[in-house]
Amino acid sequence: MQLTILGCNAATPRKNAQTTAQLLEICGQMVLIDCGEGTQIQLRKLGVKFARIQHIFISHLHGDHFYGLIGLISTFRLLGRTADLHVYGPKGIKEIITLQLKFAKSWTDYKLFFHELEETHSTMILDHEKFTVETLPLDHRVYTNGYLFREKVGKRKINSAAVTDYGVDVADMENLKQGKDIQLANGDWVENHCLTFDPAPPKSYAFCSDTAFKPDLAALVKGVNCLYHEATFLALHQDLAEKTKHSTAAEAAQIAAKAKVKQLILGHFSSRYPDLTPFVTQAQEHFQNVHLAEDGKVFAID
Amino acid sequence: MQLTILGCNAATPRKNAQTTAQLLEICGQMVLIDCGEGTQIQLRKLGVKFARIQHIFISHLHGDHFYGLIGLISTFRLLGRTADLHVYGPKGIKEIITLQLKFAKSWTDYKLFFHELEETHSTMILDHEKFTVETLPLDHRVYTNGYLFREKVGKRKINSAAVTDYGVDVADMENLKQGKDIQLANGDWVENHCLTFDPAPPKSYAFCSDTAFKPDLAALVKGVNCLYHEATFLALHQDLAEKTKHSTAAEAAQIAAKAKVKQLILGHFSSRYPDLTPFVTQAQEHFQNVHLAEDGKVFAID
Repeated sequence: MQLTILGCNAATPRKNAQTTAQLLEICGQMVLIDCGEGTQIQLRKLGVKFARIQHIFISHLHGDHFYGLIGLISTFRLLGRTADLHVYGPKGIKEIITLQLKFAKSWTDYKLFFHELEETHSTMILDHEKFTVETLPLDHRVYTNGYLFREKVGKRKINSAAVTDYGVDVADMENLKQGKDIQLANGDWVENHCLTFDPAPPKSYAFCSDTAFKPDLAALVKGVNCLYHEATFLALHQDLAEKTKHSTAAEAAQIAAKAKVKQLILGHFSSRYPDLTPFVTQAQEHFQNVHLAEDGKVFAID
Repeated sequence: MQLTILGCNAATPRKNAQTTAQLLEICGQMVLIDCGEGTQIQLRKLGVKFARIQHIFISHLHGDHFYGLIGLISTFRLLGRTADLHVYGPKGIKEIITLQLKFAKSWTDYKLFFHELEETHSTMILDHEKFTVETLPLDHRVYTNGYLFREKVGKRKINSAAVTDYGVDVADMENLKQGKDIQLANGDWVENHCLTFDPAPPKSYAFCSDTAFKPDLAALVKGVNCLYHEATFLALHQDLAEKTKHSTAAEAAQIAAKAKVKQLILGHFSSRYPDLTPFVTQAQEHFQNVHLAEDGKVFAID
């Protein structure tokens, strides 16, 4: 699993500061999370093949999280996309996008599916062959969800040496990967665990932006490999965080600590801070393994 | 009058290619013409004071000409704008913008006026103290207008030497600028032309994008100081130009020649051309004073 930060800044895009968008590579799929203005340019800079993106998850309908969506959807059409596209986001997103396509007389030639969300409790919204996505209800000024991505347990891994020793037929490899015992040419049965290794433990990623401090979030993201949590403000602006329903670095770190996640990434920084170092120091009072998001930065999730 | 090209490329924004947006400085006012995705970032790069923009003119509701508008309007609000903003564009633009503000629960604190256009003949849509703006109906796949900006004739200019020679009172300067004759302290009358020079001739700029070849446009832009005309294609792709209702470089130049404009700027280039030089050569078969738009380039209009 690999996460690329396309943008991690609050409120407005600036010269060298993109608003929220992330690209998650999970089980060979490319998933886009939020889509601030200019996201399609960020994707081009990184050389991402647009057709590989089949799922887009929008947290909420504030501009710094979705104003780039209509442009991306239009560009997909102009580039001759044929693959289906699934967009998940708050109720209203379909009306906003389709209204613009209507006035442009530019309906997509590919199938565009909207999955509008209204639930206020965590819900599984995608059960893909290889991974699942659940909502993480957040507490912001408008209806907002984070998203929890979990790989499914993969197939068992072939123990090449054992397979050779036992003289297992090539035709049985898929059965072995699926955990089945197999019968050798001499009629003997061999138990699966003698011929395979456990699959890699499934990894998980939780995206939480934007939200006021929400302690009960910890239960939902318990033990994830990586938690991205917004940290718009430093402790100095605790009052602003409360007023605007955002979090401080310390609050984000408290969620990470309580949930015992492996790694914390902070982002959605207010433009008022020229130096982001205090975000790390204030977070590390609660949780050690903390990183700062940065436009273009790639994080391995393992 | 000064024109800054913020973006001049067709269809989709790319790494180093912005879609259509222009900033026109006219009589001390900043006017924005079209607003492709990422325009606000281009404005920041140029250090434009956002509050100076009080009028925005959108040609049509294709994304490469207005997807940056909602972001700019939102950013104005976030920056605490108080000045009124007037947006001119096709019917539908108000619904698109207000729908997004509604779902974001982010109504502007400043006054936002929409002037929706439906007329299919040239109409004066703004009669400002110092300049006028008229629509230029174009021929595209959706309802589209170009815009013609004309300075009004300015005040007469004081002839400092003559004013000193005649011993004109300072209190009479404004009357002189307004073209009035004045009476000296000794009772003598002096005709205005003895004390002033003619004002600078008013300048004009015509913006025409997007459009199929439309010969009758020449009459509307006759003699303008500067014509921006889209040239999406070269002659090689004449068929595509006709099919998509765009123009070739040669067609744009034919309009310029027929209208006897002073200067022609070509833009809205298709991304299929790595070298833009042929746009100049093909245009110059019809009109000599031709320039290529370029993101960030500034043109003096005089």
